[in-house]
Amino acid sequence: MIVRAVEWRGGPDTGCLRILDQTLLPRRTVYRNCRDAGSVWRAIRTLQVRGAPAIGVAAAFGAYLGARALRRRAPASFRAGVRAVLRRLGTSRPTAVNLYWALERMEAALARPGAATVPEHLERLFVEATAVLESDRDTCRRIGEHGAGLLPRRAVVLTHCNAGALATAGTGTALAVLYAAADRGKSVRVFSDETRPVLQGARLTAWELRRHGIDVTVICDGAAALALHRFPVDCVIVGADRIAANGDTANKIGTFGLAVNARERGIPFYVAAPLSTFDPTMPDGSRIPIEERPGEEVTEFGGVRVAPRGIKTWNPAFDVTPSRFVSAFVTEVGILRPPFSRSLRAALRARS
Amino acid sequence: MIVRAVEWRGGPDTGCLRILDQTLLPRRTVYRNCRDAGSVWRAIRTLQVRGAPAIGVAAAFGAYLGARALRRRAPASFRAGVRAVLRRLGTSRPTAVNLYWALERMEAALARPGAATVPEHLERLFVEATAVLESDRDTCRRIGEHGAGLLPRRAVVLTHCNAGALATAGTGTALAVLYAAADRGKSVRVFSDETRPVLQGARLTAWELRRHGIDVTVICDGAAALALHRFPVDCVIVGADRIAANGDTANKIGTFGLAVNARERGIPFYVAAPLSTFDPTMPDGSRIPIEERPGEEVTEFGGVRVAPRGIKTWNPAFDVTPSRFVSAFVTEVGILRPPFSRSLRAALRARS
Repeated sequence: MIVRAVEWRGGPDTGCLRILDQTLLPRRTVYRNCRDAGSVWRAIRTLQVRGAPAIGVAAAFGAYLGARALRRRAPASFRAGVRAVLRRLGTSRPTAVNLYWALERMEAALARPGAATVPEHLERLFVEATAVLESDRDTCRRIGEHGAGLLPRRAVVLTHCNAGALATAGTGTALAVLYAAADRGKSVRVFSDETRPVLQGARLTAWELRRHGIDVTVICDGAAALALHRFPVDCVIVGADRIAANGDTANKIGTFGLAVNARERGIPFYVAAPLSTFDPTMPDGSRIPIEERPGEEVTEFGGVRVAPRGIKTWNPAFDVTPSRFVSAFVTEVGILRPPFSRSLRAALRARS
Repeated sequence: MIVRAVEWRGGPDTGCLRILDQTLLPRRTVYRNCRDAGSVWRAIRTLQVRGAPAIGVAAAFGAYLGARALRRRAPASFRAGVRAVLRRLGTSRPTAVNLYWALERMEAALARPGAATVPEHLERLFVEATAVLESDRDTCRRIGEHGAGLLPRRAVVLTHCNAGALATAGTGTALAVLYAAADRGKSVRVFSDETRPVLQGARLTAWELRRHGIDVTVICDGAAALALHRFPVDCVIVGADRIAANGDTANKIGTFGLAVNARERGIPFYVAAPLSTFDPTMPDGSRIPIEERPGEEVTEFGGVRVAPRGIKTWNPAFDVTPSRFVSAFVTEVGILRPPFSRSLRAALRARS
């Protein structure tokens, strides 16, 4: 049974968004019940829920929870209040475009002509948030099916950060490919970069892969280049937080350096992501906002200070891999290959 | 005043090797007095003293301390005992060739013709160990002088691990270049990779650079590729643990991936090392032994477990950067440029 990083529990009126608190993994498995938009905002901000698709799902239900709290207002005041909730949720994290994509879907559901009463608005918002979640699960399944064909019968794969079930409402993006390959009877061995500073690879990817019976070895990020030379690695697969129209890919810090090394070694570098992660408004990666997080993530480790007190740090949470280092994108509509400006445009046009 | 990572305190008969325990930095500054070969072996093995040149110096005095304990033996038995000490010290760590180089110097001092009495042997061994230390200090100074000319007046440099005063008996290798440049009035800004798993960059390089008034910013290893693109980095400078005849360079894990990224960005990649780090018996890097250390270095920090219990790990302490990614070697006899098979041979011939 796949772990559920984010799901709705109960009915629309009294239910809540249940989030697996990933800051405590792998030592403790604690679920948080979010009953208002503020707690969803904090869960995203503090990385209790993370991963671009999961952030989108959480934000959609966060918007619904925010709307539910306004249910006694008159319709115009209700709509204004919900829009304020949407703006607030949009400030939780800057890089993953799925957040804005989900909030725009909720905004569109709110603005749909014909709704007059607040209960009607609320029903539409709940249906829309549920659709965001259900489509994410379906998307994960399709990504896995398309990607599984890329792996040989005995596959060795290297991944970075966590693009698994914990990053989505379903089976993941990059890791969905591995789960689907294993389901088809392929043997899959995985090297997981630990992924400093927040250690999503050591804490989360290792945890969920082992939980699903997949052979996983944790390495330091700096050991990846040697691993690509020392072991018969078939490919590198990662997720993404935002992909520009030309294929430039924002993903967890360290992805870019890994992609450069995969290219140097002649190993395919795949990015698995739903179409909701593609941002056609960005012509290339240069203007994707890169979140910079507190230096304590670097200078402290498990609550222990490891660098001199007060030392300067630079802690970007993401980097942008130029599209020339990407071999292909694995999406719910299939494998997209270069030239990306053409293949991405066609895929996005088919979606809309 | 430069920090002394390793030095002899007192006279030959009752003195000891004083080592700054680097496992406790930056939180505590604790010196250990080693009075026998076993404690030196343990100090090397447990990384209390680390860095290829410092390991060589420590091993030389470890051999002397081992010999001193045998001073009541007859000469033949004494020599056999010292050779056992040398063999034992050679098992402390496998990758840094300076260890074997220093032990061979001690072996040669022991075997020198003409010595008959144990006190004469002991004096020669003490003189030799002192010469290893003094020449290391002089070498650091010369490396700094040669390397300083490579930096512009306002330099931005990225480094990995710690190749500083803490890695030598003097001012360091890679960091000696920065100290010498600063002494010449150049402005130096440094990005220091934290260097997982043992965090020599965050703990040691940050500590010693700041102590010497040099502007230092700590980044995660995975952020280096982005830093090379985001900031006007003039060059990358690192140390080395062993350099093959063709210039292939064993250094701290993560160096190889960094060198590949520097090349991709068109940024010079310099390796600063004494000639004692060059191993002409290795035609290339493929046979340099790579130490693999306990997985707990990856899965735990400060006693806090960060990965699932019992998860598999792979923890190589070093990697080998192919010489084609090295722009030049900075040594005590000058800057060695490609083709390295020629320039390295000439430098090593001049030494011997």
